[in-house]
Amino acid sequence: MNITFLNDPKLSILLPVIYLAWQDDILTKDEFKALNNFINNQDSFTKAEKEFLKSKIDLNTPPGRSELFHWKDLINRALKNNKKPGSLTQLGFLIANADRQVYTKEDIQKFESSFAQLESDLGIMSQEVISGLCETRDTITNKHETVESFSAQKMTALLDGDQAPVINRIKGIINSPEFAFETSTDTAVYREKVLEWCKILAKEGYGSYAYPKKYGGSGDIEGYFTIMETLSYHDLSLVIKFGVQFGLWGMSVMFLGTEKHFKKYLNDIGKLEIPGGFAMTETHHGSNVKGIQTTATYNHETRSFTITTPTEYDRKEYIGNAAVHGEMVTVFAKLIIDDHDYGVNAFIVPIRDKERNVLNGVRIKDCGHKMGLNGVDNGIIYFDNVEIPYDNMLDRFAQVNEKGEFVTSIPSDNRRFFTMLGTLVGGRIGIPRSALAAAKTGLAIAIKYGDNRRQFGPDGGFEVPILNYRMHQQRLMPYLANAYAMHFGLQYLTQRFLNRTEYDMQEIEALAAGMKSYSSWNTRDTLQECREACGGKGYLSENRLDDLKNDTEIYTTFEGDNTVLMQLVAKNRLGEFRKQFGEMNIATIFSYVLDQAKTAVTEKNPFATRNTDDKHLKDAEFHLHAFKYREKELVGSAARRFKKLVDDGLDTFDAANIMHPHMLQIAYAYLDRVFLEQFQQQLEKADESLKEVLTRLYNLFAVNKLLENKSWYLEQGYMEGSKTKALRKLFSQLCWEIRRDAVPLVDAFNIPENCLAPIVTTKSKEA
Amino acid sequence: MNITFLNDPKLSILLPVIYLAWQDDILTKDEFKALNNFINNQDSFTKAEKEFLKSKIDLNTPPGRSELFHWKDLINRALKNNKKPGSLTQLGFLIANADRQVYTKEDIQKFESSFAQLESDLGIMSQEVISGLCETRDTITNKHETVESFSAQKMTALLDGDQAPVINRIKGIINSPEFAFETSTDTAVYREKVLEWCKILAKEGYGSYAYPKKYGGSGDIEGYFTIMETLSYHDLSLVIKFGVQFGLWGMSVMFLGTEKHFKKYLNDIGKLEIPGGFAMTETHHGSNVKGIQTTATYNHETRSFTITTPTEYDRKEYIGNAAVHGEMVTVFAKLIIDDHDYGVNAFIVPIRDKERNVLNGVRIKDCGHKMGLNGVDNGIIYFDNVEIPYDNMLDRFAQVNEKGEFVTSIPSDNRRFFTMLGTLVGGRIGIPRSALAAAKTGLAIAIKYGDNRRQFGPDGGFEVPILNYRMHQQRLMPYLANAYAMHFGLQYLTQRFLNRTEYDMQEIEALAAGMKSYSSWNTRDTLQECREACGGKGYLSENRLDDLKNDTEIYTTFEGDNTVLMQLVAKNRLGEFRKQFGEMNIATIFSYVLDQAKTAVTEKNPFATRNTDDKHLKDAEFHLHAFKYREKELVGSAARRFKKLVDDGLDTFDAANIMHPHMLQIAYAYLDRVFLEQFQQQLEKADESLKEVLTRLYNLFAVNKLLENKSWYLEQGYMEGSKTKALRKLFSQLCWEIRRDAVPLVDAFNIPENCLAPIVTTKSKEA
Repeated sequence: MNITFLNDPKLSILLPVIYLAWQDDILTKDEFKALNNFINNQDSFTKAEKEFLKSKIDLNTPPGRSELFHWKDLINRALKNNKKPGSLTQLGFLIANADRQVYTKEDIQKFESSFAQLESDLGIMSQEVISGLCETRDTITNKHETVESFSAQKMTALLDGDQAPVINRIKGIINSPEFAFETSTDTAVYREKVLEWCKILAKEGYGSYAYPKKYGGSGDIEGYFTIMETLSYHDLSLVIKFGVQFGLWGMSVMFLGTEKHFKKYLNDIGKLEIPGGFAMTETHHGSNVKGIQTTATYNHETRSFTITTPTEYDRKEYIGNAAVHGEMVTVFAKLIIDDHDYGVNAFIVPIRDKERNVLNGVRIKDCGHKMGLNGVDNGIIYFDNVEIPYDNMLDRFAQVNEKGEFVTSIPSDNRRFFTMLGTLVGGRIGIPRSALAAAKTGLAIAIKYGDNRRQFGPDGGFEVPILNYRMHQQRLMPYLANAYAMHFGLQYLTQRFLNRTEYDMQEIEALAAGMKSYSSWNTRDTLQECREACGGKGYLSENRLDDLKNDTEIYTTFEGDNTVLMQLVAKNRLGEFRKQFGEMNIATIFSYVLDQAKTAVTEKNPFATRNTDDKHLKDAEFHLHAFKYREKELVGSAARRFKKLVDDGLDTFDAANIMHPHMLQIAYAYLDRVFLEQFQQQLEKADESLKEVLTRLYNLFAVNKLLENKSWYLEQGYMEGSKTKALRKLFSQLCWEIRRDAVPLVDAFNIPENCLAPIVTTKSKEA
Repeated sequence: MNITFLNDPKLSILLPVIYLAWQDDILTKDEFKALNNFINNQDSFTKAEKEFLKSKIDLNTPPGRSELFHWKDLINRALKNNKKPGSLTQLGFLIANADRQVYTKEDIQKFESSFAQLESDLGIMSQEVISGLCETRDTITNKHETVESFSAQKMTALLDGDQAPVINRIKGIINSPEFAFETSTDTAVYREKVLEWCKILAKEGYGSYAYPKKYGGSGDIEGYFTIMETLSYHDLSLVIKFGVQFGLWGMSVMFLGTEKHFKKYLNDIGKLEIPGGFAMTETHHGSNVKGIQTTATYNHETRSFTITTPTEYDRKEYIGNAAVHGEMVTVFAKLIIDDHDYGVNAFIVPIRDKERNVLNGVRIKDCGHKMGLNGVDNGIIYFDNVEIPYDNMLDRFAQVNEKGEFVTSIPSDNRRFFTMLGTLVGGRIGIPRSALAAAKTGLAIAIKYGDNRRQFGPDGGFEVPILNYRMHQQRLMPYLANAYAMHFGLQYLTQRFLNRTEYDMQEIEALAAGMKSYSSWNTRDTLQECREACGGKGYLSENRLDDLKNDTEIYTTFEGDNTVLMQLVAKNRLGEFRKQFGEMNIATIFSYVLDQAKTAVTEKNPFATRNTDDKHLKDAEFHLHAFKYREKELVGSAARRFKKLVDDGLDTFDAANIMHPHMLQIAYAYLDRVFLEQFQQQLEKADESLKEVLTRLYNLFAVNKLLENKSWYLEQGYMEGSKTKALRKLFSQLCWEIRRDAVPLVDAFNIPENCLAPIVTTKSKEA
């Protein structure tokens, strides 16, 4: 009689390994050899038995499929009738003893260690393999799912606040058939469509929303920001075109002009009767706008100005609304009177007539195709001695008097220029809010997709929604927390701006510059992760991540290059610090040192630096202290480092250059702290039913930021490795928990259905 | 007589502060008040003098411009005739004493501290301000520039190696007028252009380069990779279309088929007479391709197969060449014989006739517009019971015999499927090499632009090339170092693949999967930084970063999602580890523990963890040890963690889920180490004249990677804060040094002129 596993059951002890050797992709040729040797060394098997076993692992005569199925049956039977075994060898014993006791307990003890050694040598992960062999598996990962632990509507109400009416009106408009997305790749078609959308909005009174009622507006600048933000769920070319026309163009007139300009222009601008632009940037002067070279030469005889582009490099570049639609632009130019340069001033310069013909002396080039925002007609403008009347000077901060003399209340050219720019800081509020809306849309798409899309799963189990994978959660949940943090932070910025005084203007400018950078970079990173999280679906333009990403790409550059802006933020912080703590002021040094010493006592003691208690790690006071400590230390050390570099003989410009990366960290630390504080304040105010989920999100925001900077905290000795590791674990747990809230949390953004993507809105969700 | 600064020179001690108060944007209203109080408190001034001074800081009567100019003259004179003063007060003394000694040394000592206190209270940075007042400044930052410290040609020769002939031929082709970039936004036009380009390449014999000579090819698979890489300096739609046709389609026939298929198809595929595709991915099965649902049912009577798409979700998706041009595709489907599922096999299925008519039973949808690669016609394919002849089964690894039985040398469906996929690993070599070429192009554009573009500068000095800013250097130089590291690493991967044996196939597959992910993510990050580094210019499509970014965006997803692939890499490493170090193997545990202990002695002693010596930080042995230590520790701790989780009762699937982020780190640590080793080997081999610059680049790569992981090293106690800070300083210094070599280093990529951007190639470089 031939030997088989059935008639010689003791051989079944090796059956699981042999089955796996063929069924799974786990053994190399050498390992087959090792298995062969192992069999040869088993003294309890007869020669015939050994030959049988060896024949079953002969690479030249693999088992047929029916034999594999038969083995699987034997395995299944053993698994069904017994507790899950701990190793393949134990499984082997179960198979062998299925019908009668072939191996005694003593036998098992005798064999077990050498067989376990075999499994280990072959690199088999027994537990994993056995789990795979079990036919149905009910894992924690499988069961995790979306729950409704709070009301998304209530959350929307919290987010929208008293702006809900205008938000809902705008959402109604962009969700209407007229606002169906333009899918033509023809730039000319797209630009006209965007203009048409702007006209509809203007007709409804949204263009002039920020302008005084006297000039046809609603006098509601907060509403204007809300409109910009809400439109950003829709097409971002529309947002930017809208912002160029009613914000940059209209508000340059409103903030830099005087009564005569308001009367003459504001009403028409708000109705889009005069499409216009904002011509500041030049080819050679983008970030360093103070250095622009365009001139406005005053002619006293004719009481007019002549606008001139001196060289190719001084042409106005990237000007929105210039390539096709604009009829006038606000031009920033150096005012020259009698060969004397009176610094940068602003002028209204007509560039086209009503029939879109370019006027004499003006040359316009199209910037051509861009990475995104192709619905906006950016252009390059040259002025070949264009004469404009006296009244076209926007003369709020400086005038030419009747004698032809320059008159100003701000004699410093520098200060006057930055005062002018300061009035335009609103752009740095509109842009980060628009960026945030784009990030929210991306998150809504990626999170809803991840909640539905299934891929992989335990062997023998169902495939799992990809949002149940920890890795996937850790890619998306921190950005969801950021979105909420940034929402509250940008609300705060808006309120600070609306209630500004001259006294805190510098701080508000720094805050706006910082939040613009922070938010636009955060959007860049959020959308990148969302695209990748949606895989191939994320690459299809219909699913919107294409436009969201490419349109917001330039947000990190325009309205001030982020890297440059962050330096300004840091400079402001350092200036504040210097005021509090002059180099020579003994009293303040003393109190500073004392303060630091206190930190050393209360926070840098071994108990605190090693405290891994969950309650402590979720303690808002701990967070705030850690954030403030970082901010303060970075500022203080920057001042010390800079002084040392200069004391060592470096030119201050060279010293500042070395300090740039350090300065960037100061700006981040400052903004992180502001966002943290604002989130904390929201927790206190929020409806009880929202507190739990908001607290989870808040904790994730705080912990994530601490982890982003953990190497700094470790270097400082503010935390030890055990604590940062505990934070990491908490991070994973928070992401896991928030995953269940993630869909309602993005539903709370209440993004119009047609602004989402087919992958998450059509019935065949995954198709 | 009215008091003036000229007739009462002692008052000039305050002139610099007053001048700055108006000229610069530094004092608030409150600070004006503080200055007022300060003046009131000066006992050495008369009442009239105080009134004069206070009148000069009266916000209601600002000085005229001519007065400001006058003050500036006084300041300039003092600065010109004296050594640079250390504070504004010292500058004030110099002005006061300009004509005669108004203040004695004793006076100066008397006044100095209270005036310094004033400056400090006002937050004035004296040094910076004084530097700003100096009319010409010669800073280190200004003078830094590109040098030619080595021969770019020699470097090109090193990079190209023996592939130079084919590289130069391809560069000649893509630099020809026929290959001028297509600028139409009409997808249909673009697709035809790309097809035309592919035909030109096919005609020249480049399509069939990898195929055996017997079937019309050159039998040169290394050359094929080189072609893919070199084409990637040009249009990436061309690269992908080329790769789909000659790689995916042609090589699926070459590697999965047998002689009869080679004879029938290879020659025509290589000549692009049969455009085709590779139909594996399904809507519901992208990453988890093992789970695809398309079926190929064998009909014994007719000896044919029927290809069927069971449900909407099982359609083939994203198939390149399918939407317009493809005539045949390799379809992956589950083979069904007599209702029995024999696992995934591959079949050639015709989908269109020569006139581009879709065949009966086939339905094709266009994937539509994508984020990038719009020159490739991706499509969705449904098969409604399409019958194909017996010979269309690609039968290298499994066959249906004459009796209608399934026959295979690899009985495990799993193993057979992965063996099939393993033969196609070449795609995971072509893609990362293509990605690297795109990153090189981006770097060449951004670095050359940064070398020319000037913005800001010391007050009174010229504007500075932005590449002289440390921040800008630190954004770009690490990616330049990465590009070289990756170049050498991918050369190594290619050689390992060309010299592969069955024995090391698993490792090569892991290496390819890992490098594909590593390289495509690195390209994503490189191009993002390059785009931002070019500001608005980087946003214009003509400057190529648009297409480079958007085309390579999908590289992180296709040919295997990076996140999934990195898990496979880590699994492979863990498997290797388990083989070396089974749980029960006392001997290996002992040697492992001993090894760790040795590390503790040699590397974790306080001297090593705190060693900030420059030589040590640049020591290749230190680098290699640190990289290996990280790799080993991560693998070891993963094994321990996983075991603990399972021992604690978690299902292995849940435990694995928790481990995913840890696994990602393992994959990174492994790849970092391989890239480091390969870079080290290149240093030894390189021409003497290149060693210095390559060593700098190598050091930057090593130091940058150590810094990326510094929190881990700090947590482990492998380094202390003093050491990581020293690494950070070295990093800054290396970036500063490499900036001088940066232009020749990108010139060494020898990228065809027309593949670069107008911002760096036209004469008016910055225009």
